[in-house]
Amino acid sequence: MSNEIGLRERVREPPCDRLVESYYRPNVARALAITFDHEMWIHLAHVLMLGRQGIVAQSAVAAILGCILDLAEGGPDMIPVDDRAEDMYSYVEREIVRRLGADVGGRLHTGRSRNDLHTSSARMALRGLLIENLQALAGLRTTTLDLADRHAETVMPGYTHAQHAQPVTFGYWMLAVADVLARDHRRLTGALLHADLCPLGSGALTTTAFPLDRIFTSEALGFAAPLDSAYDGVASRDDALEAISACATLMTGLSRVAADLQAWSTWEYGFVELADRHSAVSSIMPQKKNPAALEHIKAAAGITQGLLMATMACMKNTAFADVNDGVSAINEPVYDACQRTCRICLLLTEVLQGLTLNPDRMLLAATKGFGSATELADVIVRESGLSFRTAHNIVASVVREALEHGRTADQVRSQDLDAASQALLGKPLGLPQAVVTQALDPAANIRVRTILGGPAPSNMRMGIASRRAALAADASAIAAIAERIGTARMRVFGLARAARA
Amino acid sequence: MSNEIGLRERVREPPCDRLVESYYRPNVARALAITFDHEMWIHLAHVLMLGRQGIVAQSAVAAILGCILDLAEGGPDMIPVDDRAEDMYSYVEREIVRRLGADVGGRLHTGRSRNDLHTSSARMALRGLLIENLQALAGLRTTTLDLADRHAETVMPGYTHAQHAQPVTFGYWMLAVADVLARDHRRLTGALLHADLCPLGSGALTTTAFPLDRIFTSEALGFAAPLDSAYDGVASRDDALEAISACATLMTGLSRVAADLQAWSTWEYGFVELADRHSAVSSIMPQKKNPAALEHIKAAAGITQGLLMATMACMKNTAFADVNDGVSAINEPVYDACQRTCRICLLLTEVLQGLTLNPDRMLLAATKGFGSATELADVIVRESGLSFRTAHNIVASVVREALEHGRTADQVRSQDLDAASQALLGKPLGLPQAVVTQALDPAANIRVRTILGGPAPSNMRMGIASRRAALAADASAIAAIAERIGTARMRVFGLARAARA
Amino acid sequence: MSNEIGLRERVREPPCDRLVESYYRPNVARALAITFDHEMWIHLAHVLMLGRQGIVAQSAVAAILGCILDLAEGGPDMIPVDDRAEDMYSYVEREIVRRLGADVGGRLHTGRSRNDLHTSSARMALRGLLIENLQALAGLRTTTLDLADRHAETVMPGYTHAQHAQPVTFGYWMLAVADVLARDHRRLTGALLHADLCPLGSGALTTTAFPLDRIFTSEALGFAAPLDSAYDGVASRDDALEAISACATLMTGLSRVAADLQAWSTWEYGFVELADRHSAVSSIMPQKKNPAALEHIKAAAGITQGLLMATMACMKNTAFADVNDGVSAINEPVYDACQRTCRICLLLTEVLQGLTLNPDRMLLAATKGFGSATELADVIVRESGLSFRTAHNIVASVVREALEHGRTADQVRSQDLDAASQALLGKPLGLPQAVVTQALDPAANIRVRTILGGPAPSNMRMGIASRRAALAADASAIAAIAERIGTARMRVFGLARAARA
Amino acid sequence: MSNEIGLRERVREPPCDRLVESYYRPNVARALAITFDHEMWIHLAHVLMLGRQGIVAQSAVAAILGCILDLAEGGPDMIPVDDRAEDMYSYVEREIVRRLGADVGGRLHTGRSRNDLHTSSARMALRGLLIENLQALAGLRTTTLDLADRHAETVMPGYTHAQHAQPVTFGYWMLAVADVLARDHRRLTGALLHADLCPLGSGALTTTAFPLDRIFTSEALGFAAPLDSAYDGVASRDDALEAISACATLMTGLSRVAADLQAWSTWEYGFVELADRHSAVSSIMPQKKNPAALEHIKAAAGITQGLLMATMACMKNTAFADVNDGVSAINEPVYDACQRTCRICLLLTEVLQGLTLNPDRMLLAATKGFGSATELADVIVRESGLSFRTAHNIVASVVREALEHGRTADQVRSQDLDAASQALLGKPLGLPQAVVTQALDPAANIRVRTILGGPAPSNMRMGIASRRAALAADASAIAAIAERIGTARMRVFGLARAARA
Repeated sequence: MSNEIGLRERVREPPCDRLVESYYRPNVARALAITFDHEMWIHLAHVLMLGRQGIVAQSAVAAILGCILDLAEGGPDMIPVDDRAEDMYSYVEREIVRRLGADVGGRLHTGRSRNDLHTSSARMALRGLLIENLQALAGLRTTTLDLADRHAETVMPGYTHAQHAQPVTFGYWMLAVADVLARDHRRLTGALLHADLCPLGSGALTTTAFPLDRIFTSEALGFAAPLDSAYDGVASRDDALEAISACATLMTGLSRVAADLQAWSTWEYGFVELADRHSAVSSIMPQKKNPAALEHIKAAAGITQGLLMATMACMKNTAFADVNDGVSAINEPVYDACQRTCRICLLLTEVLQGLTLNPDRMLLAATKGFGSATELADVIVRESGLSFRTAHNIVASVVREALEHGRTADQVRSQDLDAASQALLGKPLGLPQAVVTQALDPAANIRVRTILGGPAPSNMRMGIASRRAALAADASAIAAIAERIGTARMRVFGLARAARA
Repeated sequence: MSNEIGLRERVREPPCDRLVESYYRPNVARALAITFDHEMWIHLAHVLMLGRQGIVAQSAVAAILGCILDLAEGGPDMIPVDDRAEDMYSYVEREIVRRLGADVGGRLHTGRSRNDLHTSSARMALRGLLIENLQALAGLRTTTLDLADRHAETVMPGYTHAQHAQPVTFGYWMLAVADVLARDHRRLTGALLHADLCPLGSGALTTTAFPLDRIFTSEALGFAAPLDSAYDGVASRDDALEAISACATLMTGLSRVAADLQAWSTWEYGFVELADRHSAVSSIMPQKKNPAALEHIKAAAGITQGLLMATMACMKNTAFADVNDGVSAINEPVYDACQRTCRICLLLTEVLQGLTLNPDRMLLAATKGFGSATELADVIVRESGLSFRTAHNIVASVVREALEHGRTADQVRSQDLDAASQALLGKPLGLPQAVVTQALDPAANIRVRTILGGPAPSNMRMGIASRRAALAADASAIAAIAERIGTARMRVFGLARAARA
Repeated sequence: MSNEIGLRERVREPPCDRLVESYYRPNVARALAITFDHEMWIHLAHVLMLGRQGIVAQSAVAAILGCILDLAEGGPDMIPVDDRAEDMYSYVEREIVRRLGADVGGRLHTGRSRNDLHTSSARMALRGLLIENLQALAGLRTTTLDLADRHAETVMPGYTHAQHAQPVTFGYWMLAVADVLARDHRRLTGALLHADLCPLGSGALTTTAFPLDRIFTSEALGFAAPLDSAYDGVASRDDALEAISACATLMTGLSRVAADLQAWSTWEYGFVELADRHSAVSSIMPQKKNPAALEHIKAAAGITQGLLMATMACMKNTAFADVNDGVSAINEPVYDACQRTCRICLLLTEVLQGLTLNPDRMLLAATKGFGSATELADVIVRESGLSFRTAHNIVASVVREALEHGRTADQVRSQDLDAASQALLGKPLGLPQAVVTQALDPAANIRVRTILGGPAPSNMRMGIASRRAALAADASAIAAIAERIGTARMRVFGLARAARA
Repeated sequence: MSNEIGLRERVREPPCDRLVESYYRPNVARALAITFDHEMWIHLAHVLMLGRQGIVAQSAVAAILGCILDLAEGGPDMIPVDDRAEDMYSYVEREIVRRLGADVGGRLHTGRSRNDLHTSSARMALRGLLIENLQALAGLRTTTLDLADRHAETVMPGYTHAQHAQPVTFGYWMLAVADVLARDHRRLTGALLHADLCPLGSGALTTTAFPLDRIFTSEALGFAAPLDSAYDGVASRDDALEAISACATLMTGLSRVAADLQAWSTWEYGFVELADRHSAVSSIMPQKKNPAALEHIKAAAGITQGLLMATMACMKNTAFADVNDGVSAINEPVYDACQRTCRICLLLTEVLQGLTLNPDRMLLAATKGFGSATELADVIVRESGLSFRTAHNIVASVVREALEHGRTADQVRSQDLDAASQALLGKPLGLPQAVVTQALDPAANIRVRTILGGPAPSNMRMGIASRRAALAADASAIAAIAERIGTARMRVFGLARAARA
């Protein structure tokens, strides 16, 4: 009789080839690759619960547990796929019914729907991906703090609008990156908290009249808590939108970091060089060493932005209910985005670690360009009592003059300021040359910026220490969640092994 | 002399007309409309601080404070705009210098840059918009809970894939909406926490050597805390990405709610009807009453998704630094998205409040459609001991048969089950007709779903109560932030008035 | 010596594992699957040309041609991939050098770069995908015209804003779909014309000093013409943006068609039913038959919109030059979008062919709803001489009254109009009941709409005939391009076989 | 009586404030600003046609024409807006009825709907915007060709992956830009052809039984032809998707041009400098001159990509029918995108015209960097008979060696090649130094690239001439369409003035 029952009794035809090709086959392949283990774990937890609640007899429970353990241990290849059914679960149930008969195997799905099964396994997959991302991000944050530390005094021009602005250090730039990434951690954590709720027991959309114990299954699957409303549990996927938004935001930030590094690794800047292993060559141009990893990172950011838009576009205007386009089709772009983001975090970590800096080129640029002009104007304010705007205008005309005559910042002299002051105010400034020289020294610029948030080395030391502590706390929190999940899995598999037929 | 100084001393031409038309004029108009008051407040706080720190003499401080208070009280129209300068601030400073002379007016901007001025006012604007959104959202959540309560027993078909699935109540659907919105609250709150940090004092990108007191200005502007790194303070806008992602996620959810309501307000469903004031007519078709508000909500969701993408696309591949495309140009789509989201929350609240339900049509559809078939199968499992899949297959063939003969769910008889069982198992089921009738009753279906997350009325009562409590706590937290900001503003304006010349 | 040369002489390390995992391995896999044959064909054409131009000696030409023919005939599995090189081409050249030695095998790439090789093969792949799409679209257009023909008199309500508007026929709706698709054909054709230009010979970005014959290779590869500027040939990918925009536009249109069909296949409408083979069931709800194909089509439209955005986001702000993010990384989303679009066109064709209509339900809805109210107002204008707006207002009040009393359109009587007219104008209309009845008859409404673009059956017959003719011409034009390409391929492989060593 | 009729007779309330604020008020404002004149023109054409067809008596026709001419001449301010109606048309009709009474004024809308009125005026607006864009684009193309001509021999490094690749000229780069823009012209033209079809006469969705002359009105409105199917005429907006896709593609391309110019205008490259009028300064950093126009162009590209996504997201999953979200709400982003694109084309034209080049810096970079290495390898092939790959490897090791010792390209000597050859092949190359020097000369590199598409000056001259001819033909074609439209407008207004009461 086992061959006579199945999911598609309601209809008289199997799915057509076009639908299989476009829809079911890629979906089944994705499920086998990503959620197979999660679903086996869910089956075990559900069946253990059915037994505990007396909904299914212990003998049947034991048989089904044994069968699922076999499949789980055998892996995805155990599941025969013939393109006649709709999803991985159909094939799993068919295999179980084939092995145990309809009367036993047909009880696995009691009080359950593919709706809650799939949103549960999707949340488990998403939860896992988010944890991997948070761990990869922690590694990247560690590296950015290490580099911030190492290069806290490596002077270079700071830019705004791609023009020399004020001197910074490479470490100071890196520290700002670390701060963005710390907020990315919080965004991913926010998404994780929402993904970490268990919809199992929602059934199709209204739970069931069978006396399920949803708290048991939630704990058995390592979730933080059950997701309350069954309707919410099968219809909502804002957890996925939040996760992919966090990924796209993170990746957009990394595209900016990569853009800076690519500019700085040009022949014209010459500030940094990627390791050979992160670079590509040319098949025709013998001199070429291209920063392949950086362009790849930027491209991955673009793809991730598109995956976010795909997810939102899929969901838009769908019924607020379990529907393919609004609930399950989005897993594809969401998993893809999470996986890409994780790989890019790992890659960028390596790229940063492999970077060679050229501090001489950096300092030279900072010295020749006019990035110290603000400090010069500020010094005029402090020394001469002029208003800032007046001092600003004096320096502006000195710079304009210097550039028009091909002079660099280190060639600015006290007399130049006097001449400009004479023209604007009718009197010279009379600043000693030593004061001017000091104001124009990029490293000195940095040393005097000691207020909160400034690049002075003392600030950097304290700031890096406090950020290392925060990072350690973040990493511990993620480790605790990962451990809770791992423990739950071991417990369920253990219970199942103890109870198997 | 006051006319001789200005921001553009470095260059010899004003902006060209094309650049003004495409860039500066809309930017200035937006600033005057949205950030004028925020920037006046910042000027006051900054100048008060410059005085307290001894950076600018009290006489000049008093004069500048007086001038700014004049402008703040006079409003945006006080600022003469002639399309020769780059932004609202240029016009403001020019006006102050015109009034006070270069030697006094030229001191306003000491130790400050437009970079930190603008990211501070942008964060204040964003903070305000997020608070407005959270307040509007609280109103919408209240209404959804009210409706969940009122319609906890208004039976209707529940749908998956737009087909009858299982009976639900209108209140149960509404409660799931409320749960999504509660998570939207948390996402918007996450964004608010990141927007609520003060970059003032960052200067252009590295703070300054003037001894600014960044904690004073942060508190004076009602921020939760200073944003530490100055570079971060002028280069990062992940706060904006987080805010607009949260808006787009919220709006995507609302598009689904609107899609349901639009389907249910068709002639064919006839479940709900919008109030006339939320409806449009036809200029040609006299019978027409169109659910205009719903289509507008869905359109606004699409626009908001696009604004999110605009923001991410602007920022992508820009230098990680203060640049127009990555930092300031995004304010336009971000403010727009926040404002639309707020208006839509307010509108949907009214639409829901104005909705007329047709409980008879809803119940009829639930009774005639086959949404109770799952419960029938479950009853077979419980009564006959068959496995769920076998019971499912029996009911599936009964339904298929009924539909092929044009029968409705309430016409299914015990004999139909017997016939199907006979065909599949070789024996009848023998279920009493009363059991079948009870299983097929939609209201009874709902009453028996009492486990966690089910639609049983008792569940609904408890669930609504706990959600009302959570909502009240959320609203209090937002009110506290709003009050902190309001208090800070009053204090600064008070200090300024006391100190004005 | 053959093992001593290679592409990465310039650098000292192979690509690192992270870069391989994230970048090179998926790229190589995609190339082996999609562009292997195109690149073999390019190699043959290029080497034949090198021989004809005397750039490489005939003996080496013969040897290389033989080697490439071997690989082409053996297929992608012939290429040993060890994750130490950057792309498929590196492996191909390495294999050729391994077989023929550096002195012969090292000549394949003379006067060529991977830049022009890859943009050529990308255009060949895109060209092929666009042709497949145009052919699938032609099939879909044929089916829509067939259904427009078959259902030219199948009356149903026409909707605006999801409310009954005016009577239409299913065929009339289908014809409008056909007209959108005809414009999609033109958009895809526009993209094809731009993809169908040959960049080969562009070299890295400036051609070469070797006397290449670009016209020979362009013709040999079946292109319409060479793409003139070499810089354009390696830096631009607007061909790809145009293609994916056309796909996303087409898919957005199909999402609307699917949305209509899904609404009409609900229990509440009951107008159409999908074939079982295009439907999915429920694992728990025995009655369920879900229009899976329609939700899949809508989801695919969302994904395609996201792929468009991914492509644009990748390209944004990249240098206008050969760069990974702006030129080659976009192939992934572009191919994906084209393939999905093609599969969906084929699937929707089948879905439409498998559709079961319920003309009775359709006509009943058209009769009971108030879709004929416009015609009634128009008849009043024609019969009574009232202005349209006055007649519109009379009918509007009649409808409002009827709905408030639960009456349907077919219950409207002449006296109802008289009463409304009396209220508004102070006098009855006095329309004979037969005139009212005729005006309210949905089928009659359709018959009288005979002006250009109206749904009258005579219009439909003529319109379908002219569209069939246009479709045949479109299909012929595509067939001619496909044949040109096929002929060119056969010629090149023939020349190569004749010349092989 | 005139005050007693109106559009909203069917309902009992005016729109609520929230709906007005969020939906109607901005829509009416947009209509008054963008489509007022188009709609007046449509009214005239429609009423003239109603008279010619005998549908409305000449006396009423004359009165209505007079009234509309009054409004058209008075401008949008003539229309009283009180936020009680739904759209501009409602206010216009109300005003006409107020002036002429219901019996005359109520006839304006005979045989017409807002549906066809609005899609007609939307197409007229879109048509106009596309023509403006095409004209602005023609100006930009002219400037790019002028610069290509002027700088056909201004040598600079050509880049791939932001690294020196091969020498190019600034003119050669500019010419590639011109070629992309020529394709943008074709895409915009494709969109224009689809927008240039007249839906007037479609009525609500099925035309009407009044004997309208749709060909008359189509010609009167200057359209190329009527849009055949009435349903298509009110339900489809693929014209808008095509237009905005073309804009977004164009803008994406311009973002790349701006990215190059921004890189080249850094202190580090120093190749180009924007005019002061296209630059911004800093309020704090006196030395700053920022390429504001370029960042604005890139930001505008990002916004335009977002507007495209907004448009597609709005339309997705809407009914294929006249609905707000799929048909009319998209006008906002589409108009916005077209207007931004036009402004950016005009701005970039000016920016290019105002650019100052630094040919010395450009040539120096081309000479010092290793961009001529490919030519050196090619010369080895030609002189020594080695295979290209072998030559490539020899040069690669020479370059690697040089860079590791801090030498520039112009310091490479024949002996360096001999040493590398000795290491790889066991024998020196023996190339005369003069040959090496010539191969490494960037200008010589360019001169020898004379094959189709190469940068040799002779190629440039011919290529620019042929492109100028193509551009002139493009401009003529657009001018002819603009003239057709202008003539039609003059004719209709003339006929109306002749016939006015």
